[in-house]
Amino acid sequence: MGLGCVVWLTGLPGCGKTTIARLIETELRKRREKIEVLDGDEVRQELSPKLGFSAEERNLHNRRVIYLSKLLMRNGVNVVVSLISPYRVTRAYARSQLDRFIEVFVKASIEECIRRDPKGLYKRALAGEVKQCTGIDDPYEDPLNPEVVVDTEQETPQECAQKILDYMKSQGCV
Amino acid sequence: MGLGCVVWLTGLPGCGKTTIARLIETELRKRREKIEVLDGDEVRQELSPKLGFSAEERNLHNRRVIYLSKLLMRNGVNVVVSLISPYRVTRAYARSQLDRFIEVFVKASIEECIRRDPKGLYKRALAGEVKQCTGIDDPYEDPLNPEVVVDTEQETPQECAQKILDYMKSQGCV
Repeated sequence: MGLGCVVWLTGLPGCGKTTIARLIETELRKRREKIEVLDGDEVRQELSPKLGFSAEERNLHNRRVIYLSKLLMRNGVNVVVSLISPYRVTRAYARSQLDRFIEVFVKASIEECIRRDPKGLYKRALAGEVKQCTGIDDPYEDPLNPEVVVDTEQETPQECAQKILDYMKSQGCV
Repeated sequence: MGLGCVVWLTGLPGCGKTTIARLIETELRKRREKIEVLDGDEVRQELSPKLGFSAEERNLHNRRVIYLSKLLMRNGVNVVVSLISPYRVTRAYARSQLDRFIEVFVKASIEECIRRDPKGLYKRALAGEVKQCTGIDDPYEDPLNPEVVVDTEQETPQECAQKILDYMKSQGCV
């Protein structure tokens, strides 16, 4: 069993973070590695049910996720965080707090994400029913030096997950 | 190594929760068991920095601690929660969420807690500088059926910790 690490999936809504996170989870469970997926919506429900999506609120929520990840990782649990986490400063803070941190840029163009729109979020944002939607009226800051980049317009979810698992292995995390 | 469990220390401010929690931690670290202490003030700083002490806010904070405990416990980590957690309904919710839950009533009279007052909290509350202080102007609901009761006016901190460790062992947690 490896040391445990935090794989931080960042990217636009609809880019494929959750799908990839679940594939990694399934594979690691098969291998009997300890794994927790901290998925945006679910964790928000538990930790920040009343929080909105302003920069300050996103940051506060992300800090909670970082703290939770830290406690799990230092007990040998692999954590896959699936969170838009649009701000560089927040991800830099995550990196500073987490010894074994793997930033993964889950890349897809905004046009493609709007086309997929798995939760109907963009549709509502474009109709003006939702404010502060990342990619529409809220910024997404691309990672500058992520450990892994996966492009979900060019690679299948399985290929993306495998690339991340390979990187985890190369770092002794699993 | 045991299954991991959640030891939930509840009691008035100044009753001795933190001291006992740290003794359990030290002992379990010696035995190379996985252990995390979730202590009221520290966890509040990380998870709920802006939250107050109304019943609703306490409950919200306690739910965050329960979620965190759940993730740790299901990965084989022992968790000692040190939290006033004055309401029966909150502790009942914790019990419902946590498979291996050990409620420990850390007992000391309000008079004795006021005499100890390690953080100067009662002094400020009695001077009217702090509101919603449990035991002064906010209620504390005694546990009705806790797994363990320790009385810090009759037993030393070491004796209290040992009693809890013995109970953990009897349950296969360590």
